[in-house]
Amino acid sequence: MIKAEIITIGDEILYGQITDTNTQWISAELDKIGIKTIRKSSVGDSEEAILEIFEESSKRADIVIVTGGLGPTKDDITKKTFCKYFNSALIDHPQAQIDVTAYFKRRGYVLSGTNKSQYQLPSNATYIKNTMGTAPGMWFDHNGVVYISLPGVPYEMKGLMTLSFIAKIQERFDTPVIFHKVIRTIGIGESALAEMIDVWEDSLPPNIKLAYLPSMGSVKLRLTGFGEDLKILENAVEEQFQKVLPTIQEYVYGFGNDELEEVVGRLLIKSKQTVSVAESCTGGYLGHQFTKVSGSSAYFTGGILSYDNAAKINQLGVKEETLNTYGAVSEKTVTEMSENVRKLMGTTYGLATSGIAGPSGGTPEKPVGTIWIAIATENKTITKQLTLGGSREQNIHLTTINILNLLRKICL
Amino acid sequence: MIKAEIITIGDEILYGQITDTNTQWISAELDKIGIKTIRKSSVGDSEEAILEIFEESSKRADIVIVTGGLGPTKDDITKKTFCKYFNSALIDHPQAQIDVTAYFKRRGYVLSGTNKSQYQLPSNATYIKNTMGTAPGMWFDHNGVVYISLPGVPYEMKGLMTLSFIAKIQERFDTPVIFHKVIRTIGIGESALAEMIDVWEDSLPPNIKLAYLPSMGSVKLRLTGFGEDLKILENAVEEQFQKVLPTIQEYVYGFGNDELEEVVGRLLIKSKQTVSVAESCTGGYLGHQFTKVSGSSAYFTGGILSYDNAAKINQLGVKEETLNTYGAVSEKTVTEMSENVRKLMGTTYGLATSGIAGPSGGTPEKPVGTIWIAIATENKTITKQLTLGGSREQNIHLTTINILNLLRKICL
Repeated sequence: MIKAEIITIGDEILYGQITDTNTQWISAELDKIGIKTIRKSSVGDSEEAILEIFEESSKRADIVIVTGGLGPTKDDITKKTFCKYFNSALIDHPQAQIDVTAYFKRRGYVLSGTNKSQYQLPSNATYIKNTMGTAPGMWFDHNGVVYISLPGVPYEMKGLMTLSFIAKIQERFDTPVIFHKVIRTIGIGESALAEMIDVWEDSLPPNIKLAYLPSMGSVKLRLTGFGEDLKILENAVEEQFQKVLPTIQEYVYGFGNDELEEVVGRLLIKSKQTVSVAESCTGGYLGHQFTKVSGSSAYFTGGILSYDNAAKINQLGVKEETLNTYGAVSEKTVTEMSENVRKLMGTTYGLATSGIAGPSGGTPEKPVGTIWIAIATENKTITKQLTLGGSREQNIHLTTINILNLLRKICL
Repeated sequence: MIKAEIITIGDEILYGQITDTNTQWISAELDKIGIKTIRKSSVGDSEEAILEIFEESSKRADIVIVTGGLGPTKDDITKKTFCKYFNSALIDHPQAQIDVTAYFKRRGYVLSGTNKSQYQLPSNATYIKNTMGTAPGMWFDHNGVVYISLPGVPYEMKGLMTLSFIAKIQERFDTPVIFHKVIRTIGIGESALAEMIDVWEDSLPPNIKLAYLPSMGSVKLRLTGFGEDLKILENAVEEQFQKVLPTIQEYVYGFGNDELEEVVGRLLIKSKQTVSVAESCTGGYLGHQFTKVSGSSAYFTGGILSYDNAAKINQLGVKEETLNTYGAVSEKTVTEMSENVRKLMGTTYGLATSGIAGPSGGTPEKPVGTIWIAIATENKTITKQLTLGGSREQNIHLTTINILNLLRKICL
């Protein structure tokens, strides 16, 4: 088993000022390629502390992955500390210089004094290009241990890992054969799901493991098979997968990396259907879920953010009487919103949301978390009341995935 | 300086299956009472790994805080490992027995076999009641080092820390005084900012440290003062802060925990002004930034997601001629979008975005990242072209914070 340690460098993480999402992401990626993370550590911007953790982790692990401390400012000392640790020196790296200069030029900036340090690397580093920023990735192979240095900015780190380092690790180490299959569910909690597939889980062969990966509003099931022959493994995992699928079918919206909004988008493209939105409580978040998918212009035409009642009346044509009699958060209002936006935008479906996202605005009859959603089609309008009770952020998110999932079911 | 280390125990965190929010919270709480976290570590459910990290951290730190591994199941081995480490034994703790039994009774459960282990503690532990669950808090004072054991469930952990351990730590240690001040900037990169305040940074007194905390599109500066008297410290930090502020004023949008969308919201409330949006490339994300702030209905009325050209023409009244002559991504188009949405919604400001978010859709004249933004006011419309070149997600995010920042400047 190849063992890895992940080290995060930076006072801001140590003092709790920013959230470290990098280490979780990295360890999950390592897990996928059969590498076991044995420890995660965070240390501050201190040479002594960094040297100490390098020393320690290299004794335990085959791969030491280090994030952070690569910026051009004085408190970023990762590269200098690598030099001290390896007894090497910082030198201008010709290719890094070309890439960093080009990166600045593309953005219309001149490469100034401090930034020149961005293309200086320890002389024993293998340079790995960072296409999303100016802090290069670095790979060191020293006394049988591989050290990987990544910037702390999450999307730069992820880009480097995905585009370069994962493949490089698999090339360098004899990683086991692993096969993953992920089933994505929505509309059921982790423990209810676990009870539903209890018997099946207990019957899994010893080389196939099941993991529950819950996130806000959905649960992923990951089947991981360990073996020596990929083809045999794939078949074994697929067999288990086919056994469990009928039991949980109604909650399954996708597989692998499928995101709900992508699944819905593909269904709309396939059936040549279109969608528009009338958002009140989701305030743009629903539109964003559609439009963050590249190519969504094929099915998403746009919509109305009718946040206040005037917008509901003037832009969407909701009847004043409806709002006065039933209120903005009501079945009647979302019905009119969805039907009217559908007609206005000339789409197959019209989606509408209205609710009390909180934390203020609740009443005894309509407490925070009271939400109505509606989907208008040519022949009928489907409505649903949600009773949520989380934070504003959660209520907005859960409303959105609920209506997306409802649309998915209608499309099917 | 009192030094602390935080240790998280559990395979599920090590393998990236769940997010660890505990360590960030604990270190931020310690920071508030002047205790410096010098390292954070995660280890798995392995006796060897736990003993090793106990050994190491007790050499470096005055306080070792351990979360997780306190459940009643077989993989929870924290208590047993504490016994081995301290050479003590698990015994039934009379008060813990009373409290745990009462906790089960209140919930209508019978205390069964496995759960009886919940009131067994290492004989050298000081028992601290957990009012929110069944895993007791424990305090050990051993060879001058304090060990605190907390459950991994976040609200139980927080309850124990807030209600008991923070006060106990302050009683046991002579804690120093720390004062933080955060300045939030936008529109300037980390290195350009660093160069701008270079001389000032070098002149900082030794007890005041500066940190750069960059995130997508913005950089936070954090001044941290260490001392003995809070009033003197506050004044010293404030003095440095006043020295640097004039140099970077144009980039500063807020302080402390201020988010850009909150700062803009407060400015709008103060001046009793309102805003509406016409979004093309941001597709709802701009509206979401406004509406994710509780109370935004005071200034945000809504808007039009004019994602396709038909919506730009029909819902927003953009002239067909404009679209045909200049294209959707043009100064003319965003000008009409912003002016028309402002009139339609009757707001003080009308904000519009149109651009090529990518990754597809670019042309030689208008490559991916070509974005136009506009803000219409009663008397004039301000437009700006952005040249971004990141991922779709980045381009959407950076467009949004750029137009929010432009609105902030106009409001001022």
